[in-house]
Amino acid sequence: MTPAQTIARTYQRIRDHNDPAIFITLRNEAEAIAEAEALAAKDAAALPLYGVPVAVKDNIDVAGLPTTAACPAFAYNPTRDASAVARLRAAGAIIIGKTNLDQFATGLVGVRSPYGIPKNSVRADLVPGGSSSGSAVAVGAGLVPLTLGTDTAGSGRVPAMLNNIVGLKPSLGLIPTAGVLPACRTLDCVSIFTLTVDDAMTALSVMGGYDAQDPYSQRREVGSLTAFPHGLKLGVPRSGQLIFFGDAQSEKAYADALKRWQSLGATLVEFDLEPFYETARLLYDGPWVAERLLVIRDLLASAPDAVHPVTREITLAGNRISAADTFAALYRLQEVKRVADATFAGIDALVLPTAPTAYTTEQVLANPIELNSRLGTYTNFVNLLDLCGLAIPAAMRGDGIPFGITLLAPGGADAKLASIGRVFHADTKLAVSGKAVPQPELAPVAAPPSDTIEIAVVGAHLTGMALNRELQELDGKFVKETTTAADYKFFALSGTVPPKPGLLRVAEGSGAEIVVEVWSLTPAAFGTFVAGIPSPLSIGTLKLADGSQVKGFLVEAAATEGARDISSYGGWRAYMADKK
Amino acid sequence: MTPAQTIARTYQRIRDHNDPAIFITLRNEAEAIAEAEALAAKDAAALPLYGVPVAVKDNIDVAGLPTTAACPAFAYNPTRDASAVARLRAAGAIIIGKTNLDQFATGLVGVRSPYGIPKNSVRADLVPGGSSSGSAVAVGAGLVPLTLGTDTAGSGRVPAMLNNIVGLKPSLGLIPTAGVLPACRTLDCVSIFTLTVDDAMTALSVMGGYDAQDPYSQRREVGSLTAFPHGLKLGVPRSGQLIFFGDAQSEKAYADALKRWQSLGATLVEFDLEPFYETARLLYDGPWVAERLLVIRDLLASAPDAVHPVTREITLAGNRISAADTFAALYRLQEVKRVADATFAGIDALVLPTAPTAYTTEQVLANPIELNSRLGTYTNFVNLLDLCGLAIPAAMRGDGIPFGITLLAPGGADAKLASIGRVFHADTKLAVSGKAVPQPELAPVAAPPSDTIEIAVVGAHLTGMALNRELQELDGKFVKETTTAADYKFFALSGTVPPKPGLLRVAEGSGAEIVVEVWSLTPAAFGTFVAGIPSPLSIGTLKLADGSQVKGFLVEAAATEGARDISSYGGWRAYMADKK
Repeated sequence: MTPAQTIARTYQRIRDHNDPAIFITLRNEAEAIAEAEALAAKDAAALPLYGVPVAVKDNIDVAGLPTTAACPAFAYNPTRDASAVARLRAAGAIIIGKTNLDQFATGLVGVRSPYGIPKNSVRADLVPGGSSSGSAVAVGAGLVPLTLGTDTAGSGRVPAMLNNIVGLKPSLGLIPTAGVLPACRTLDCVSIFTLTVDDAMTALSVMGGYDAQDPYSQRREVGSLTAFPHGLKLGVPRSGQLIFFGDAQSEKAYADALKRWQSLGATLVEFDLEPFYETARLLYDGPWVAERLLVIRDLLASAPDAVHPVTREITLAGNRISAADTFAALYRLQEVKRVADATFAGIDALVLPTAPTAYTTEQVLANPIELNSRLGTYTNFVNLLDLCGLAIPAAMRGDGIPFGITLLAPGGADAKLASIGRVFHADTKLAVSGKAVPQPELAPVAAPPSDTIEIAVVGAHLTGMALNRELQELDGKFVKETTTAADYKFFALSGTVPPKPGLLRVAEGSGAEIVVEVWSLTPAAFGTFVAGIPSPLSIGTLKLADGSQVKGFLVEAAATEGARDISSYGGWRAYMADKK
Repeated sequence: MTPAQTIARTYQRIRDHNDPAIFITLRNEAEAIAEAEALAAKDAAALPLYGVPVAVKDNIDVAGLPTTAACPAFAYNPTRDASAVARLRAAGAIIIGKTNLDQFATGLVGVRSPYGIPKNSVRADLVPGGSSSGSAVAVGAGLVPLTLGTDTAGSGRVPAMLNNIVGLKPSLGLIPTAGVLPACRTLDCVSIFTLTVDDAMTALSVMGGYDAQDPYSQRREVGSLTAFPHGLKLGVPRSGQLIFFGDAQSEKAYADALKRWQSLGATLVEFDLEPFYETARLLYDGPWVAERLLVIRDLLASAPDAVHPVTREITLAGNRISAADTFAALYRLQEVKRVADATFAGIDALVLPTAPTAYTTEQVLANPIELNSRLGTYTNFVNLLDLCGLAIPAAMRGDGIPFGITLLAPGGADAKLASIGRVFHADTKLAVSGKAVPQPELAPVAAPPSDTIEIAVVGAHLTGMALNRELQELDGKFVKETTTAADYKFFALSGTVPPKPGLLRVAEGSGAEIVVEVWSLTPAAFGTFVAGIPSPLSIGTLKLADGSQVKGFLVEAAATEGARDISSYGGWRAYMADKK
């Protein structure tokens, strides 16, 4: 199928699905197809999103389409793409429209918009979830495979669970927010909705990276998918700390998910959720609502009725907060951050319900603020603590309501969450979205990279010898003592201070086994160490007695002329002891 | 002299100097001497501050002495040392008392205290400078060689200049602030006053480092002194941007200082000071005064007259600022930070006057707020932008007023500033403090570490060859093409994919000169690169045709048996071209 055919099919699906509340603005079809046709001139292999139709939440600028933030009176016509959108296009994506949202991205329900309520793609009576309602439903309804949301307190995760899809909330500053209408500018993230974790990572790889246009952009790496690590430790809340608001099916689905993690080889470690709850309360009662106020202060003054009544009520509360209150909250947040950091000392990631339960549209309309708050139980604290999050489907409940879990880790661990989340999701064998699409088989990935390099030392760097402190100063760790294969001659080099030996490889099996110590160093320490090794020594690859290979010391053959062959000692320590 | 004798001499000097405004609380002499005597049981060589008498600004807790912040009504009795003080004591320092300050560290003048005005140690009619007035004068008057101040907007630098001593304002979070009464908690630093830069670095090395007690502590390294670097680039403001308030002698002294930097080998680079001035205005007009309000809000409510009238007026302004104003200022600061960061792209450090001029106590008492503000012209923006600063004496003016410069660089560069500042200060040959103490000779230090490692490649890693992308992916930079000394044989190794050569050192002068490319890598990239080099290649030390040495590829001699000697081609590119 050509990109143009894919796009035409997308528009056909949108017409067939016939929910006018999903899109606030649908792009002109002919224009989108023309853009797709122009892709033919490009190298598909170089474009990771070649011809992929993408919809964008309507608080993110797309040149040529209005940005409304679901408030008609606020609408403006951006002349350039948001940085994230520009990066998608550069990777071959075709933007097909702007999706509905809780007005000004304030809400987790998807019912606070004058553009209607997108129908939940799994069970029509449920709220779609918000604030990224249209983007989540567009993926859930099978209209497009990738949409952009935003996430300030859960808007990229709650609607993912409610539509049985994947929601990736990246680390703060990883995807630029230039061209995104702020909710809370210090907390906002562009988020990703897809059917699979791998698709989300592809999109993250395209959009992630430093952007000079965005003062809140950070120099963070996206990272790569790796195999499921050994010894994975997942944090689960202490007994009694979880809240499900009486929803026994959610509670059971969560317990089942934990069992699945254990069956995958993860160890569950209890942690104290209370500091995280406290952070959520800080957000709820704290100064950050004043950030939302800054965005629409002028509109609230000139045309208060243009703002959704619930949104207006929430936002105006920002007027009552002082600078002193603000700093007091920032101090407390800083203290709680330390507690959260300590939580992760022995834990790779937290695993929590994405939301404690689900509500129908009817329920939420009858109790709009309280039920909305409940949905944020496990999402509100995440952005304040600079965690990254990955919401993945975990179960389809007996009552047809989807249940999901969210993995959380300190900012920068996006790829780590994806690497474990993809395996969990595949293991569930769940069909995804409201269309019950089967999951594709997982693609193979590289082994988890070791963050240390091992080096075999044979002489003055051995424990207790003259140069061993060099390894210690570089924070080197002793791994083991072993011997080389019998492929080496060992020389006492002449004229070296302190005295040093040289290891020279000879024909296989024609030499001696020489004692070595293996130490591990970080790449930077290893690099610094190697840079300091003087001639005639070099760092090459040694073969050990067990047949394995390791980096280690060698000597240039030219330097062994006239040197004493001490191979018979079997090692430097024995030779030096004999010399005394 | 024993530590106990040193301490006794200190108390004698304090009595002789006879300025009751320097100390708010002087520690009991017998107690201090007893603590010094107890040091005799310890290893002096292991204690970098063995027996050094230290005075501490009275907004930093010292167990057993009251903390007043120069406000008697606010005083409390701390039961434990501030983290910075505890680290000083652990390094052998003896705390001898608490010094006067502008009340609540609000001010740059040193006249806003009910405990009197410490006499400037250089010229008695001048203000001592503040807010760390007593700490600066205690060093300037030769009472102790080391004192602690605090610095939120210049309190550790302005009084250093006015007393002809060194003032080090470390990077944010480098010295913990646990146990320090906040001024603006998000900006406060513990600062250091000494006679020389080297003494300040010794103190910084003792006090610097992460502290779990302090939520604002950062994992930053103190670093080490190095030799004056080649190619130093110093930023100087564009023509017309400097302000001296008509003080021609300061203006000339600053111009002379710039000439001295040039004579030391530095290149001066113009930069735009305006974003830095804008930051200072943000501090002055912005929300941060609400942080000061948080500290004394209760006192201002219960006993407003207990607060110095100038301090009261300044602090109460914090009541008028909203949460929205606060976030708006934080956003703008974030934007300006980006501009400041860009300034440092081609500049190692900024060199600015520490203060534009100096004032007498009489002048300041007549115009307390405006003249105070003027003194902060070049200091106010520093903490907001997370710069580190080093104030050093630059000249003694004809009128007997000391003039100083301040070096500024992004947070983390403390040791770099000290490494260049110490050379400048020594070059002035200025006697220091109000006692005209001659400077000691500079101790030798290590050469500046290179932050890249060069590697010579000879085969498949050459530009355009099969493995060159490995260097590019590691962000390697091409340095030059050159040749080895005529000490090598060059082989086409058999069975390698892609085809690879091997370079083998032979007897000096008995080989060929082989073309190499030199690339540079960071230590981590170099380490990663070396770790990936397969057998039989290794990384050793090559001798180049010009006699210099560089890390580079070698081959194990055992692997050259049966390999074709292609030395006559003089390089891999020529050989491969011939093969085609």
